[in-house]
Amino acid sequence: MKLSVAAELAIRGISVLASHYGEGPVTLSELCDTKDLPKQYLAKIFSSLSRADLVTPIRGKRGGYKLSHPPQEITLLQVIEAVEGPLAINLCQFDPPKCSDMQCSLRGVWSELQNMLRTKLQSVTLADCGVDIPSDPSKLIATAD
Amino acid sequence: MKLSVAAELAIRGISVLASHYGEGPVTLSELCDTKDLPKQYLAKIFSSLSRADLVTPIRGKRGGYKLSHPPQEITLLQVIEAVEGPLAINLCQFDPPKCSDMQCSLRGVWSELQNMLRTKLQSVTLADCGVDIPSDPSKLIATAD
Repeated sequence: MKLSVAAELAIRGISVLASHYGEGPVTLSELCDTKDLPKQYLAKIFSSLSRADLVTPIRGKRGGYKLSHPPQEITLLQVIEAVEGPLAINLCQFDPPKCSDMQCSLRGVWSELQNMLRTKLQSVTLADCGVDIPSDPSKLIATAD
Repeated sequence: MKLSVAAELAIRGISVLASHYGEGPVTLSELCDTKDLPKQYLAKIFSSLSRADLVTPIRGKRGGYKLSHPPQEITLLQVIEAVEGPLAINLCQFDPPKCSDMQCSLRGVWSELQNMLRTKLQSVTLADCGVDIPSDPSKLIATAD
């Protein structure tokens, strides 16, 4: 049960934009340097984020990318779905399902897990994870408990 | 954010054993026919489940596989970890982490998600999803809400 590499890079990249919200566009090179990300792959990922209206490309010499909305209005679910497509933790959770056994007793368990994960990912916004180095690192440990 | 194909097949396969618990071993061919699973791949998966002491191979003409423990003592987490390795939803949740940025502000969010998923997968046993066709299919819909 894993996040895709594309979604992981998307969240790392867009979290840098969130930490620079209101300061003007950030170039892909700056993004990649900050989080040690592969530039060519991130360019593709940011095209997906742009199509989903989560980031806006700014052209010109001082161009780059900026968030299309305030950090508190962009959820982790939106970022993940922009690059992975609609959340589906397994075959029967696709819409329409990729498994035709509608009476399978596992379906209810997977639906419950998917709903729980969706609710959680919808509740976390970039404002909750947009600051690069928190002033009090112990907060991270507290959140992890 | 997806379950691996191996873990999905493992859970489908072992759920058939759960529905036949106490009835003697089930052959891989019977398992594959019941859930339309690929036999060669399932043989490898069941070797992993056997190494994790979740299923026991029974040799001989009437051989096959049986659960090593009652269905209510085998959790989804155990089955998933037997084939995927320890649960790690992304790079920083491996032990040790596969990302060296210990001060990354996203780490707390991923830890929280991982803990939530781990708790849920630990709470669901094969007894909760071991019956192949429930007597009241509406229960599945209720569970999915």
